[in-house]
Amino acid sequence: LPTKGVTEAEAISTLSRHLNRVPRPSNLELGIGDDAAVLRRLVGNLVCSIDCSAEGVHFDLTWLTLAEAAARALVAAVSDLAAMGSRPVAALVNLEVPANAERRDFDAIGRGQRRSGVVLGCPIIGGNIVRGTRWVFTTTVLGGARRVVRRDGAHVGDEIWLIGDCGLARVGLVLLQRGLDVADLPPSHRRAAARCLKAWKRPTAKLQEGVRLVRVASALIDVSDGLANELGHLAHASDARLVVYSEPLLKSIPSSIQRLMFWLGLDPLETVLTGGEDYALLATGASTRRPDFARAIGEVRTGKGAYLETAKGLQALRNGFDHLA
Amino acid sequence: LPTKGVTEAEAISTLSRHLNRVPRPSNLELGIGDDAAVLRRLVGNLVCSIDCSAEGVHFDLTWLTLAEAAARALVAAVSDLAAMGSRPVAALVNLEVPANAERRDFDAIGRGQRRSGVVLGCPIIGGNIVRGTRWVFTTTVLGGARRVVRRDGAHVGDEIWLIGDCGLARVGLVLLQRGLDVADLPPSHRRAAARCLKAWKRPTAKLQEGVRLVRVASALIDVSDGLANELGHLAHASDARLVVYSEPLLKSIPSSIQRLMFWLGLDPLETVLTGGEDYALLATGASTRRPDFARAIGEVRTGKGAYLETAKGLQALRNGFDHLA
Repeated sequence: LPTKGVTEAEAISTLSRHLNRVPRPSNLELGIGDDAAVLRRLVGNLVCSIDCSAEGVHFDLTWLTLAEAAARALVAAVSDLAAMGSRPVAALVNLEVPANAERRDFDAIGRGQRRSGVVLGCPIIGGNIVRGTRWVFTTTVLGGARRVVRRDGAHVGDEIWLIGDCGLARVGLVLLQRGLDVADLPPSHRRAAARCLKAWKRPTAKLQEGVRLVRVASALIDVSDGLANELGHLAHASDARLVVYSEPLLKSIPSSIQRLMFWLGLDPLETVLTGGEDYALLATGASTRRPDFARAIGEVRTGKGAYLETAKGLQALRNGFDHLA
Repeated sequence: LPTKGVTEAEAISTLSRHLNRVPRPSNLELGIGDDAAVLRRLVGNLVCSIDCSAEGVHFDLTWLTLAEAAARALVAAVSDLAAMGSRPVAALVNLEVPANAERRDFDAIGRGQRRSGVVLGCPIIGGNIVRGTRWVFTTTVLGGARRVVRRDGAHVGDEIWLIGDCGLARVGLVLLQRGLDVADLPPSHRRAAARCLKAWKRPTAKLQEGVRLVRVASALIDVSDGLANELGHLAHASDARLVVYSEPLLKSIPSSIQRLMFWLGLDPLETVLTGGEDYALLATGASTRRPDFARAIGEVRTGKGAYLETAKGLQALRNGFDHLA
């Protein structure tokens, strides 16, 4: 089955028209159009990661436009650089294209990638197109950093820091899954709903915060699959016990959003702990070095695993998300 | 639908067990297991490319084992580095996993990637797993090179050079598509058939030749989608006319393989010009600088487009493959 009259060359030309408007790195020797892209000598370390955003798994086109899906895929990939304390240099994108793709789809994708590329300072310098059964964006991000922060450096006695919101994107997703438009909601919930929808549809990567954490954090990770899950990863990598407290976690959620959670039948604490895709950052570090943009939500203790401490005592946090389940 | 009892952590652990046995680059600071991989300062330029090998498009599991498909996907990606005259440093792989995946599938993929990684000198230092509807390997390769060869440097008067075989993989694919085993063939064709099947199933990337061409070639590309197609790319990028001659092209095919082509009803010249996936190299350069491993198959003239010169005169070569068709 051919796509609806779009050839590969036309698709690439439509995408390139947008992508070439994102400022290129000064050391780009060769971009889109050859067998590979070439960057002259990077300063410091090369940080690299591959990420995938697939229709039917990570997004649904009844909830997002194709431009939003494309923009969001780049943000999600770049968030892995923020999680190292690195800044993006460039990205490469493989696009799987369903049979019913039209020319305007490539235009939408180009627009979305351009918008994200400009905001993130991350030009797409190479790519590949392949025939598929659904839209899939597979993105490799390349970053630079003089020093990085790993997952395995959490020390006993460190505080646990949350940078950004958790749970808002989950509320946005629930609204979309239930087919609730902002206009369908009671007026008192509309503003909170709009904020949560934006958190899911148009997330941002905490790049500046990531870079600033390099000097002060002992461990760092981004929260893509839910806080409980990422706490478990940090605990495992650092061979320590990470204990978060319910009070600061609840306080991290604005009260208008907590009211919306209740209205939707969502438990605020559970939502903040298991809701993914906000692309917040989770770090550990000495309390004396906590930056003003970080919220202390717990502490690193001896032992293993991730725990929640409430008035009732310690409770083990089970991991919330499996990419094969 | 969960996969057959395989969790993401088990899949990653099974894959890592194999992948960690491929020698790592000495400048690898951080490999699989964090948000991103980190390589310390690369020497020279960073060459990077993304490539995709999808079940149903690039391979079919009735023709290839999963280990072969995984090994082949890495070779195909690395061939883009050979096409720049670069050597691989490392790769990142995104794996889309169908619902019926079993633990032994990850073991097979790990085995295949390990084998290719060792042969190519290309360790996989990071990856991602996502639930899909078919097996898809999306591979980013990172390479180093002090100097690269681009597509756009062909000069009028240069020879056109073919490095490696073209058309053999197509014969192998035709045998598989027709369900013909080597044992089904007349004894006189079996050896040639085995060679063609190997060319399709277990291709290699011409890395050493690519590096040696940096000093002598004016333009370079790999032949993944057929010679006619790649000649068109070189002609377009270099703004020149590339003319290949039928005689040296036919001579490039061993006579036993030409006989097998006739037996299968394939035209040898058409097969060598349109058959893809041999991962040969196509270059241009001054005749005085042609290396011993390169075969002269034509010349660069003024004008545009890719042409075949036969006893009957010049004939335009149309591009043979569209990734969206």
